[in-house]
Amino acid sequence: MVLIKIGGGKNLNIDAICRDISDLLKNKERIIIIHGASETRDEIAKKLKAPSKVLHSPSGVSSIYTNDEAIDIFLMTYAGLINKRLVVTLQKYGVNAVGLTGVDGRLWEASRKNFVYSVENGKTKLITDNLTGKVEKVNTRLLLLLLGNKYIPVVCPPAISNENEIVNTDNDFAAAVMIRDLKIKKMISLFAAPGLLRDADDPCSLIKKIDRAELNNYMQFAKGRMKKKLLGAEKAFTYGLKKMYWGDGRIVHPIVKILEGGGTVIS
Amino acid sequence: MVLIKIGGGKNLNIDAICRDISDLLKNKERIIIIHGASETRDEIAKKLKAPSKVLHSPSGVSSIYTNDEAIDIFLMTYAGLINKRLVVTLQKYGVNAVGLTGVDGRLWEASRKNFVYSVENGKTKLITDNLTGKVEKVNTRLLLLLLGNKYIPVVCPPAISNENEIVNTDNDFAAAVMIRDLKIKKMISLFAAPGLLRDADDPCSLIKKIDRAELNNYMQFAKGRMKKKLLGAEKAFTYGLKKMYWGDGRIVHPIVKILEGGGTVIS
Repeated sequence: MVLIKIGGGKNLNIDAICRDISDLLKNKERIIIIHGASETRDEIAKKLKAPSKVLHSPSGVSSIYTNDEAIDIFLMTYAGLINKRLVVTLQKYGVNAVGLTGVDGRLWEASRKNFVYSVENGKTKLITDNLTGKVEKVNTRLLLLLLGNKYIPVVCPPAISNENEIVNTDNDFAAAVMIRDLKIKKMISLFAAPGLLRDADDPCSLIKKIDRAELNNYMQFAKGRMKKKLLGAEKAFTYGLKKMYWGDGRIVHPIVKILEGGGTVIS
Repeated sequence: MVLIKIGGGKNLNIDAICRDISDLLKNKERIIIIHGASETRDEIAKKLKAPSKVLHSPSGVSSIYTNDEAIDIFLMTYAGLINKRLVVTLQKYGVNAVGLTGVDGRLWEASRKNFVYSVENGKTKLITDNLTGKVEKVNTRLLLLLLGNKYIPVVCPPAISNENEIVNTDNDFAAAVMIRDLKIKKMISLFAAPGLLRDADDPCSLIKKIDRAELNNYMQFAKGRMKKKLLGAEKAFTYGLKKMYWGDGRIVHPIVKILEGGGTVIS
């Protein structure tokens, strides 16, 4: 089974990604897709005059401050716009996709975080009304039911908390929990860069291979969202993943290129 | 099997509806839910400065002009916001709901309408770029797969066309096709009125019983969206439905009250 993660950048080549997924399926590969929608979320939030507010943890990881209004925008963009546009593009290539959020069938059950710390203007603040959580349990029964009947699950946040709240959740961490609970060995992650770069501004500084045992040494090269991908990858390997491919989702044959070693391969 | 339709009005008591559904399920009833989101769609469309434009057919039925931008807003509000808020409220009451659009798993496959007529300022115009369609085929296999595994499908438009476009579709007509393909005998429709009224402005003018053979005689009392409900009901009865309940979705025990005969019963 392969987990394919499609990033939330607006310039990814969704059509090319879906065509490659259709080809992969011809090799009898079982596939689950997980996706983001961050750029679209931020754009719609701005248009609705409720711009996304970023929290910065003391360890330097950024996340979105999520109140009820932010959850509404989250649902609109992740579960509505991006999930269904992806499903219909997959359908165009003969992939019988079914879109789900972590809320549907309690697919991703999370423990809500009671509080988070955020650094603002050099001061560390305690935030207690943030609707976020950590995925703890995956409804593997529902995913295997769909896969066993030739449906391809297309999954995105938010998750559902133990107390039935809709909560934002880290997609890379959720992917790691899916890897654990479904015993997935291979993951492909597509985003708007050629892979992990030594210099974020130089696309030619691609790091082609990473030994999973040395992942932590590469944290120095991870900027912004890449930090979460690295942390998620570390978690995924402790959960049984054997190989992780990172690569460019903007090009013509994104998955073909990645599997040929055109991006960053972690193993 | 019962089909429960929840209208798109913003003042429906979703919490009370979900609690009643949870009680119905205790009686071992098999339930499929279908919902609208029209008021939320119009509200968000306005906020995004792309207000919904209404088309008026020569026969007096209104519908929304649906270009690509309108489909985006449709996905955001129907598939995203309203579907998932409904799913999580059902989960709160122990109902293991799974939200789906007509696009997921080609649940509602539609033939796209090549053109529609619209009356504007007394003139009949031909509209050819409208992304709407008529549901022709329901993926009963997916719905029965979920129901057979104790999941409650929560379904909403849009549909997918034969050419893999996302198309807006009439929810009442789609309900009738589900009734046909799943051999459903009973339907409950909840909206923001006590039932069909002789005088739309007088809530005390409720029509309590309608003989299905005389449905057409009641068209004179149907204003706006009620026309579509009546047309959908006519279709549903020709497709095998035995009993249709219409009633108020704003009250404390909406479904209990409807089943006690508190709304309009058509049979």
